Amino acid sequence: MAYELYYWPGIQGRGEFVRLALEEAGADYVDIARKPESEGGGASAIMAFLEREDIACSPFAAPFLKDGNIVIGQTANILLYLGPRHGLAPTDEAKRLWLHQIQLTIADFVGEAHDTHHPISGELYYEDQKPEAKRRAAHFRKGRIPKYLGWFERILACNTEGPKQLVGNTVTYADLSLFQIVEGLLYAFPTTMRNVVTEVPRVAALHGRIAQRPRIRAYLASNRRLSFNEQGIFRHYPELDG
Amino acid sequence: MAYELYYWPGIQGRGEFVRLALEEAGADYVDIARKPESEGGGASAIMAFLEREDIACSPFAAPFLKDGNIVIGQTANILLYLGPRHGLAPTDEAKRLWLHQIQLTIADFVGEAHDTHHPISGELYYEDQKPEAKRRAAHFRKGRIPKYLGWFERILACNTEGPKQLVGNTVTYADLSLFQIVEGLLYAFPTTMRNVVTEVPRVAALHGRIAQRPRIRAYLASNRRLSFNEQGIFRHYPELDG
Repeated sequence: MAYELYYWPGIQGRGEFVRLALEEAGADYVDIARKPESEGGGASAIMAFLEREDIACSPFAAPFLKDGNIVIGQTANILLYLGPRHGLAPTDEAKRLWLHQIQLTIADFVGEAHDTHHPISGELYYEDQKPEAKRRAAHFRKGRIPKYLGWFERILACNTEGPKQLVGNTVTYADLSLFQIVEGLLYAFPTTMRNVVTEVPRVAALHGRIAQRPRIRAYLASNRRLSFNEQGIFRHYPELDG
Repeated sequence: MAYELYYWPGIQGRGEFVRLALEEAGADYVDIARKPESEGGGASAIMAFLEREDIACSPFAAPFLKDGNIVIGQTANILLYLGPRHGLAPTDEAKRLWLHQIQLTIADFVGEAHDTHHPISGELYYEDQKPEAKRRAAHFRKGRIPKYLGWFERILACNTEGPKQLVGNTVTYADLSLFQIVEGLLYAFPTTMRNVVTEVPRVAALHGRIAQRPRIRAYLASNRRLSFNEQGIFRHYPELDG
């Protein structure tokens, strides 16, 4: 049976980290909310699910993945589930915990990227929190991007099985997620990234390699891949790029 | 061999979610940074560890837990590791994923609680971001606290094995973490919480029950339990409580 992915249509958002894993795995999945409302799709399909009381229990937020009777929420948790099933995680427990630790650090980074344009509240428009966004984005650009990407660079360098992947000697879901982070930052903060990328050559090389993997390349060229835009997590507002 | 917990001394912070699980389990652990510097403790022990290059690989941030040769970072990941080892997680895979999903939602909530006093940057003092903090805290109080606590109330109600615990029919690490969140919110936002608590009776009852568990009660009364203060995640600034 096909996986059912529930995520807001129209943006890559957090759902994209799941999509990349499903695509790399060649897994059969339905992106529920991108189907027409007349076929049970649309954002209303997600909202209806989140309010269901007949299942014990519905997630706090999208994305969530349905696999038969199992419903899994939280992006990193979905990947924790998918990884071993599709060869995108190591079998060794210690390595699997390390992989999950990396993914949770990616989740923190994504949250901070989001808050550059929404430092006050997700319920307000960006336009209603622009001065605060400018201030937060400056700290993100100068402090956080180099700190996070520097850490990824360092753990690539210290992988005893080689710097081509974050964990072990094959691609894992965290490599796909790191690709997506770099892709998003290049879109949102092109000026900042021009300088930062030269400081993290292993991260940049990983980003390039993932983009060239056959299934990922086919996915990125397909209409299943949505474009970045100013409704998602990574938004290009030139005034925030400094 | 005793677990070694690495977390900043002087605050409960994210480390407290781990401490509560270790205390409830009756596990043998050393709170490294609370030892004197002369005995290898203090904040410098954490910083030195984070900069080590001889281990593959060091975490992005504290807390992290050392169990022999395994080093585990990210609070929810540490609990994912400890849970099954100490009877604080169910054995069934689907339930364990559900428990972890809840814990990750708790982590999101904790991050938002922190950002009420640090909406611009963790590297600035609160005093340098007070107007923004006031604005963010208002949205947190009115929108986020009721939304998160309402979700916990709902999942307690929909637990098919009873509303006394979040998952299954015994206490898990998420119950301990939910206790800590409520405790922190009562400290930081007493005025707000006076009204909210009456709306979430199952959450309030769980909070009371956890506080009375013998090992937790003994821990809370001991000098191992630090007091809340204005350096941690939950800070009482009356101007933010509205």
